Amino acid sequence: MKVMLTARARFSAAHRLLNPAWDDARNVAVFGSCYNLHGHGHDYTLEVTVAGDVDPGTGMILNVKELKRVVDEKVIARVDHKNLNFDVPFLEGQNPTAETLALAFWKILEPEIPAGRLHEIRVLETENNVATVRRD
Amino acid sequence: MKVMLTARARFSAAHRLLNPAWDDARNVAVFGSCYNLHGHGHDYTLEVTVAGDVDPGTGMILNVKELKRVVDEKVIARVDHKNLNFDVPFLEGQNPTAETLALAFWKILEPEIPAGRLHEIRVLETENNVATVRRD
Amino acid sequence: MKVMLTARARFSAAHRLLNPAWDDARNVAVFGSCYNLHGHGHDYTLEVTVAGDVDPGTGMILNVKELKRVVDEKVIARVDHKNLNFDVPFLEGQNPTAETLALAFWKILEPEIPAGRLHEIRVLETENNVATVRRD
Amino acid sequence: MKVMLTARARFSAAHRLLNPAWDDARNVAVFGSCYNLHGHGHDYTLEVTVAGDVDPGTGMILNVKELKRVVDEKVIARVDHKNLNFDVPFLEGQNPTAETLALAFWKILEPEIPAGRLHEIRVLETENNVATVRRD
Amino acid sequence: MKVMLTARARFSAAHRLLNPAWDDARNVAVFGSCYNLHGHGHDYTLEVTVAGDVDPGTGMILNVKELKRVVDEKVIARVDHKNLNFDVPFLEGQNPTAETLALAFWKILEPEIPAGRLHEIRVLETENNVATVRRD
Amino acid sequence: MKVMLTARARFSAAHRLLNPAWDDARNVAVFGSCYNLHGHGHDYTLEVTVAGDVDPGTGMILNVKELKRVVDEKVIARVDHKNLNFDVPFLEGQNPTAETLALAFWKILEPEIPAGRLHEIRVLETENNVATVRRD
Repeated sequence: MKVMLTARARFSAAHRLLNPAWDDARNVAVFGSCYNLHGHGHDYTLEVTVAGDVDPGTGMILNVKELKRVVDEKVIARVDHKNLNFDVPFLEGQNPTAETLALAFWKILEPEIPAGRLHEIRVLETENNVATVRRD
Repeated sequence: MKVMLTARARFSAAHRLLNPAWDDARNVAVFGSCYNLHGHGHDYTLEVTVAGDVDPGTGMILNVKELKRVVDEKVIARVDHKNLNFDVPFLEGQNPTAETLALAFWKILEPEIPAGRLHEIRVLETENNVATVRRD
Repeated sequence: MKVMLTARARFSAAHRLLNPAWDDARNVAVFGSCYNLHGHGHDYTLEVTVAGDVDPGTGMILNVKELKRVVDEKVIARVDHKNLNFDVPFLEGQNPTAETLALAFWKILEPEIPAGRLHEIRVLETENNVATVRRD
Repeated sequence: MKVMLTARARFSAAHRLLNPAWDDARNVAVFGSCYNLHGHGHDYTLEVTVAGDVDPGTGMILNVKELKRVVDEKVIARVDHKNLNFDVPFLEGQNPTAETLALAFWKILEPEIPAGRLHEIRVLETENNVATVRRD
Repeated sequence: MKVMLTARARFSAAHRLLNPAWDDARNVAVFGSCYNLHGHGHDYTLEVTVAGDVDPGTGMILNVKELKRVVDEKVIARVDHKNLNFDVPFLEGQNPTAETLALAFWKILEPEIPAGRLHEIRVLETENNVATVRRD
Repeated sequence: MKVMLTARARFSAAHRLLNPAWDDARNVAVFGSCYNLHGHGHDYTLEVTVAGDVDPGTGMILNVKELKRVVDEKVIARVDHKNLNFDVPFLEGQNPTAETLALAFWKILEPEIPAGRLHEIRVLETENNVATVRRD
């Protein structure tokens, strides 16, 4: 049986979707209103799931307080109340879709969590648009 | 690592659960108040998840606008503000449980999405009763 | 200062909006897809608010268990898993909009609650469409 | 008794809080991370409530489809996927707090709704920060 | 027109409902399972609403950051992860119903907020049981 | 393709996290405010998922009414409005974290559900802290 623990956090950020190698017409065709020159924004939800054995001393896979501290320090503090196209070094040069964010957060969090424990990251841009990265 | 994108949509529909091969007593025993002669209804939520590689040009697995268009056109437009027992040709002769809907929506959506990309369909009849179909 | 207590309950029902004095064309123009012949349905939320002095013995305005019992017995049991156009005697001959339901539930609940205590009834047809009746 | 109808809609927008008459230090002291140079953003919820008599022909105060059309056309289309500091003429020169938005939306919607019917506008910037404007 | 600003916060607490002047039988009759000897608990939501003129310098009624700081410091820090029957001096000798909490929080917050500005406090014990105190 | 059905239920309970083999200082270091002497509490959500073939007679994997009855009778009735450290025999001697609850509920529910059908149990302590047990 697989046991998992999920911590959830939120952040509010602006972004603009675009491919700088494309002209305006193609960017509009692909990204529509998400290509708006001055950007738009979301109240994102981030869910981070770790898997592993339950520590008999704590009754937890990882200390959920510690997991939340890592997520807050390494991700939330860097993206909350930011513009994802301008203010986040680890997203530089990337198109900040939900998929891009989920993959980037995985790279940031993976080395901060005991080896092999990080199982899944979900980024909810809105409740209707969600990206998931999962260890296969 | 597996990367996934989920689009969520809603629809409001009436339905009645029954097995026409059974008599009233058996239908009541199995379906209870869901067998009510004139039906009842729900505000359903539909979640459609696709999996696959992220397109380096768009930063998306599939264009989420296109995914939503397909879900709206092929599913939502056919079931929203409908009676699932009378108004939906692709449900004809089936008992419209959440499981039935999830399987039927899979059949409708699978050919509309690039081959092998459709990963999961969830149908929330209420927040307390959810069916899931997932590629195994 | 005004002190209030709100109990919330849910029910799932089918309905169809129509004015039987109108022809099809006018019903379609006014009610659109809500005029669908075989109906559609919703997971309704009902919020019932009472106002009044806090009883020093219980620390409550009304016993919330008792308030919930009244709401369940007098309203929920009569509308849950029903078709609001056919199965609910107290709605007979009425067009079951959210406003109609809120007014009808007020009439049902008002005599069941200590005089002058019923303050507000809200009916959420969906989270995007809500009717409220409030003592003025 | 007062009867009311509420329509709810959502929009995603970027914004930055600032008073251009103040220097950086004062803006930071007052607005904190909301003063971030490149802005941030939210998935806003907008609730518009009308009050009045129920029309005996429709069973509604206003046709909810019509109310939603007005809200979508006059407000949502102008703010969704926009930057509230740059892209919305009716917000020009204003600091786009939740209170500012609620007051501006009132001015936009009031003339579009039958006289005296508009009762309340709520703007949820996040679920933890909400502005309300109500006819007194 | 009345303009209002609402801040929302959460806390998790244990409580037991009882009237120490009553015997077990009467406490059980009135409070049912809420009288459980070792208590039970909830994830409470607290909503604090202030009303007043919008400051032309900030575009806010009160600085929402400041309002949240007061709510966190004066209320949340004293009740979160506490047992409301044993750990909260300002609730001593009171039966911790939702109504009791809303009234007690009003007394705590009223002197901390500019005179006459506090308009409403709501305490959601669960999403189905809510107390409201409002300036009349 | 894997087909699944999820039933969701809620319960309100108090708990305290502690390891009785540790001294106060270590318990505080590990569990923080969750070690509060008189406990705190939550409105838990429990999701139980079964997997398997859809019965052609009912259109369901298991009768959802029956699944809910089992969950209510075997789990909810034993933990709702209880203190998880004192009132629940099947949790005796265990530290009631979300992970502990999910594993304990699995042991209780597994023999009550047709062999091999129980697929996943999720326990949401708050919306920000979730444990999952899944058949691997």
